[in-house]
Amino acid sequence: MAHRTLKIGVVGGTGYTGVELLRLLAQHPHCELAVITSRQEAGTPVAAMFANLRGRVDMNFSAPSDATLKQCDVVFFATPNGVAMQQARMLVDAGVRVIDISADFRIKDIATWEKWYGTKHACPELVAAAVYGLPEVNREQIKRARIVANPGCYPTSVQLGFLPLIKSGMVDLDHLIADAKSGVSGAGRKAEMHTLFSEASDNFKAYGVTGHRHHPEILQGLSLMAEREVRLTFVPHLTPMIRGIHATLYARLTGGADLQQLYEKHYANEPFVDVLPAGSHPDTRSVRGSNLCRIAVHHPQGGDIAVVLSVIDNLTKGAAGQAVQNMNLMCGLPETTGLEQIALMP
Amino acid sequence: MAHRTLKIGVVGGTGYTGVELLRLLAQHPHCELAVITSRQEAGTPVAAMFANLRGRVDMNFSAPSDATLKQCDVVFFATPNGVAMQQARMLVDAGVRVIDISADFRIKDIATWEKWYGTKHACPELVAAAVYGLPEVNREQIKRARIVANPGCYPTSVQLGFLPLIKSGMVDLDHLIADAKSGVSGAGRKAEMHTLFSEASDNFKAYGVTGHRHHPEILQGLSLMAEREVRLTFVPHLTPMIRGIHATLYARLTGGADLQQLYEKHYANEPFVDVLPAGSHPDTRSVRGSNLCRIAVHHPQGGDIAVVLSVIDNLTKGAAGQAVQNMNLMCGLPETTGLEQIALMP
Amino acid sequence: MAHRTLKIGVVGGTGYTGVELLRLLAQHPHCELAVITSRQEAGTPVAAMFANLRGRVDMNFSAPSDATLKQCDVVFFATPNGVAMQQARMLVDAGVRVIDISADFRIKDIATWEKWYGTKHACPELVAAAVYGLPEVNREQIKRARIVANPGCYPTSVQLGFLPLIKSGMVDLDHLIADAKSGVSGAGRKAEMHTLFSEASDNFKAYGVTGHRHHPEILQGLSLMAEREVRLTFVPHLTPMIRGIHATLYARLTGGADLQQLYEKHYANEPFVDVLPAGSHPDTRSVRGSNLCRIAVHHPQGGDIAVVLSVIDNLTKGAAGQAVQNMNLMCGLPETTGLEQIALMP
Amino acid sequence: MAHRTLKIGVVGGTGYTGVELLRLLAQHPHCELAVITSRQEAGTPVAAMFANLRGRVDMNFSAPSDATLKQCDVVFFATPNGVAMQQARMLVDAGVRVIDISADFRIKDIATWEKWYGTKHACPELVAAAVYGLPEVNREQIKRARIVANPGCYPTSVQLGFLPLIKSGMVDLDHLIADAKSGVSGAGRKAEMHTLFSEASDNFKAYGVTGHRHHPEILQGLSLMAEREVRLTFVPHLTPMIRGIHATLYARLTGGADLQQLYEKHYANEPFVDVLPAGSHPDTRSVRGSNLCRIAVHHPQGGDIAVVLSVIDNLTKGAAGQAVQNMNLMCGLPETTGLEQIALMP
Repeated sequence: MAHRTLKIGVVGGTGYTGVELLRLLAQHPHCELAVITSRQEAGTPVAAMFANLRGRVDMNFSAPSDATLKQCDVVFFATPNGVAMQQARMLVDAGVRVIDISADFRIKDIATWEKWYGTKHACPELVAAAVYGLPEVNREQIKRARIVANPGCYPTSVQLGFLPLIKSGMVDLDHLIADAKSGVSGAGRKAEMHTLFSEASDNFKAYGVTGHRHHPEILQGLSLMAEREVRLTFVPHLTPMIRGIHATLYARLTGGADLQQLYEKHYANEPFVDVLPAGSHPDTRSVRGSNLCRIAVHHPQGGDIAVVLSVIDNLTKGAAGQAVQNMNLMCGLPETTGLEQIALMP
Repeated sequence: MAHRTLKIGVVGGTGYTGVELLRLLAQHPHCELAVITSRQEAGTPVAAMFANLRGRVDMNFSAPSDATLKQCDVVFFATPNGVAMQQARMLVDAGVRVIDISADFRIKDIATWEKWYGTKHACPELVAAAVYGLPEVNREQIKRARIVANPGCYPTSVQLGFLPLIKSGMVDLDHLIADAKSGVSGAGRKAEMHTLFSEASDNFKAYGVTGHRHHPEILQGLSLMAEREVRLTFVPHLTPMIRGIHATLYARLTGGADLQQLYEKHYANEPFVDVLPAGSHPDTRSVRGSNLCRIAVHHPQGGDIAVVLSVIDNLTKGAAGQAVQNMNLMCGLPETTGLEQIALMP
Repeated sequence: MAHRTLKIGVVGGTGYTGVELLRLLAQHPHCELAVITSRQEAGTPVAAMFANLRGRVDMNFSAPSDATLKQCDVVFFATPNGVAMQQARMLVDAGVRVIDISADFRIKDIATWEKWYGTKHACPELVAAAVYGLPEVNREQIKRARIVANPGCYPTSVQLGFLPLIKSGMVDLDHLIADAKSGVSGAGRKAEMHTLFSEASDNFKAYGVTGHRHHPEILQGLSLMAEREVRLTFVPHLTPMIRGIHATLYARLTGGADLQQLYEKHYANEPFVDVLPAGSHPDTRSVRGSNLCRIAVHHPQGGDIAVVLSVIDNLTKGAAGQAVQNMNLMCGLPETTGLEQIALMP
Repeated sequence: MAHRTLKIGVVGGTGYTGVELLRLLAQHPHCELAVITSRQEAGTPVAAMFANLRGRVDMNFSAPSDATLKQCDVVFFATPNGVAMQQARMLVDAGVRVIDISADFRIKDIATWEKWYGTKHACPELVAAAVYGLPEVNREQIKRARIVANPGCYPTSVQLGFLPLIKSGMVDLDHLIADAKSGVSGAGRKAEMHTLFSEASDNFKAYGVTGHRHHPEILQGLSLMAEREVRLTFVPHLTPMIRGIHATLYARLTGGADLQQLYEKHYANEPFVDVLPAGSHPDTRSVRGSNLCRIAVHHPQGGDIAVVLSVIDNLTKGAAGQAVQNMNLMCGLPETTGLEQIALMP
């Protein structure tokens, strides 16, 4: 089947999500990079900033231009929060498909969003129209979407981990626990003290126990799955690796079932969710650079607690890869196109 | 106050617990290393194996000899499991104080021990006499002990983290959760595949979800605190750092209390437990090479789950440092003697 | 242009070179994995050992079988040294193209080989026939070769770094220096003490200063380039990263030239050598998982010493990637087929 | 021997050199921390910034105050370059001993300093009076000094490595090469992009090949040793570890000698230089947190090149530890006081 080439715009693109997106798009058989904008880096060759793209992305960052972006088929926002909500309306109106990898359109409740992101939302009406881009939950809506809110990294790993269990109806929805561990790239490419090598290396710590922006996003997703409000204790941790999230999920079982079979059956046809054999422990490195989520489910030590281990690459399935997956769905391409890289191991 | 010099024997001493013990003893003002045995390395200079000890420990490993060990005041076993139980009887009978850093004397129920350690116990009667060497729980018994079973690394961090909460009587004792993360040195100095740099670096994984030897040890300790049987889900993880354990503990609250005050009050006089200010997140590196356990307690997100963050250096407070602390107590020395190193940071 | 599918055999394949080779072959458009042998792991699914290959390589390791290997178009040896020399004759005679990623056929002087590899060579006559598989030097011979000796990792980075300089005839060939730093995967997937995470992490050291097996291989290559014997001081170092080699090369200039232009011109048409702009310092991560060698050349501080910085991924251009490049050449495929992965960064 | 307690002032102290200095001073038996200044952090508890100092340094950073500093016996500058030269005059005139860990007083030639540090020197007359604080070269002058210029980290490792060789008079002084590798903490505690964990981890690179500020400092030192001008190619590299420098030094021999004996004899009485047995390769971790420089010397592969391997902890012997060593000398204390920590390994 022949596909026409999609003209792609990337807004932002100087962060880790950006370089990962460019890596994937540069190898995608049906994409042509039309424009990569960065106000700050306008004029700089993309490959001068990201040496891995030398010889593969021969463009400069350019100043943002509405006119150029409007001529694209798809525009990705790989920007800090607060940028996409300023520009998305104009692009959607121009018929461009928009995929926002930032958080601007993820949370339906505007007041909640404004509380956690500390600013007034510039485009609340588009929030309602935006589809939450977790294909394993919303595949059909994504296909028809004009604007997709690409999920956060923690929310992807936690929601995919809990999904079959919550759908099964046999867990205590008031005491869910997600103990999540992220590689340092999750903090972004920003000159900050706490993510310096000498601070983050050979160290492990929790953070944000009192509150994290991904908490309301996860709650919204789990509550939609459960069709009622759920309660979740969410503790993120910083772990000394570059890429990867490992979510360890705990749920009290209220009924009996074969968890292994439940998970295998639920995800049997998902191209990017891999349920491991019973007794397994997934490595984050087994998905490094790939768009897969690998999951193992345990019912340990004779108790009534289910333990789910869910790993993703935070930059791929947790950000840029999932964005490309959403693009494929929105544009009628096979869902796995350009996303079949095998994880780099070791 | 003048103290006489203690003659010290170390059995084993070629592993990470061993080199850490030697580092501490070589700097201890009242210790003289009399003998360091290793059947395999007999004749090798200790400093040829551990270059950090060059110029500080000028001895060779020697073949094990009962006669020499009997002349010591204190003998440490830094051996694989199953060795101390063969030799401890003879030393105790000779009046030597014995501190076993391995697991031979930790578990009171012999059948449980034999199940988890896969061998018949050679000296069950000494198990009853052995004192579990967690000073924050058993200080007075340790002072009078002839043989101390030094706690495991995970058990130290988990028990110290749960102690005030369990003593308070206001948690659901049937659904305790310990999500623990360990540095790779916890696996010991053994030529094994899964702890190679290229396997363990830039990676994160759970292991032993179906069962871990430290589980029964922790259960025994928590049950003694609670004065009833408790249930605990324990999930250990391997994290790409050399030293450190971070235990993230979850407990459902059944009553109200000021958790911060509870912890501060409980540990007010403990020299090696540091309760951080409210809202804190301890770094494992803040205890790297020190004998401290640092703890933060949270009651996040308006729910009924208490979250405790407990960090130790697995080789120091989790092994060799705690062993020296126990020696100090057993020998009438100030508890902190030789243990005041400040953590190395960064 | 349509190409027929090549039937591929891999002998060995349980090491890091093996898993990297399988990653590349599984994504190669013209290869079909026919057999992967391992005496020790016969019957084990390949993906049970290397989780990144789950869903992509659905085969078991099989016991070595001459009959099966003889039916392949190409057989790769990803074995320890000493295996390929036992089996290559039989395969070459059967018309199979052989690519040996181990060291068995790299060194033309049998006595030298036997000295460094500590065993008698089993097949000296094939050594003469084997082509040294550095395409940037021997491309035409490789195209016609029945057996290729794939270069070592250090030799690849050092030879590509020195090549234009030596060809220019303007360096002191008696005092070449190669100060090379390798990631830990270069030591292979073997349960050994010195490559444990807790030994190799947060540490840096030289090794093999008194002699290293790659020294004679490099000398042979440089001497062929220079058409006389050269002298080289070679100091390898172990650096705490998984993949990557950084060779820092020093040569005394005996004539004047524009080094930047020399390098750019020499490598202008090479698909896998990238000469960076003047003043650059290549990152090893800029080639992580890719088949590129990136090179910068400096003439610093007004002296007469040229400094060349040459980086590769030791498992890709330094082993499995170069092997696939050689296969492409031997089989008449475009040289870059299946080797266009962009480096994973960060 | 009883010593009076020294009142210590630390100017700066919010960087890595600062926290290392505080770790050492807090454990020094004859020091009392009187004041730690930081304009930016005035009022912040020191232990709130550096958690390892909790319970050990119970002071706040205070605003710089001449009056308070003048009452100290010793003042350390752990400041960015350019601060000490503003304040040292006043303190020296007040009879305070000054130790500048920054670069303000290291280079005797003012024009050279101004070229490399990009600013006019505020106090050139004190430069002449300042003693370069490398005790192994200038011990007697340091004892009498009022102001000491503490050496840089690279210069310490390189000078100690070359010293016996240069003193022997049997090397080519026009083609010295220092290939040096530093842990990331050498770049300081600054929010910068290139030292982020996700940039510096799992990566290796050279930097500053065209010129580095430590180059003139090393040249000055080596030339003084040689009593003539020397030429040196200096290539620093960034290696993914926190602490440690490994300098690999190359020198062409012009005469014959037993290098091992030369080094052992030269350093026989040095408390902080440890010459390893012939054939050794020092690990940087073998000096982690200690004030030692460990050195191995090789004459490999039958050539005329001597190879010296010299390792230090860049924050200890390369900065704060050497500063305390200088303080001990200046104040008549035994040189090793407070500096006997054994390196932390693993």
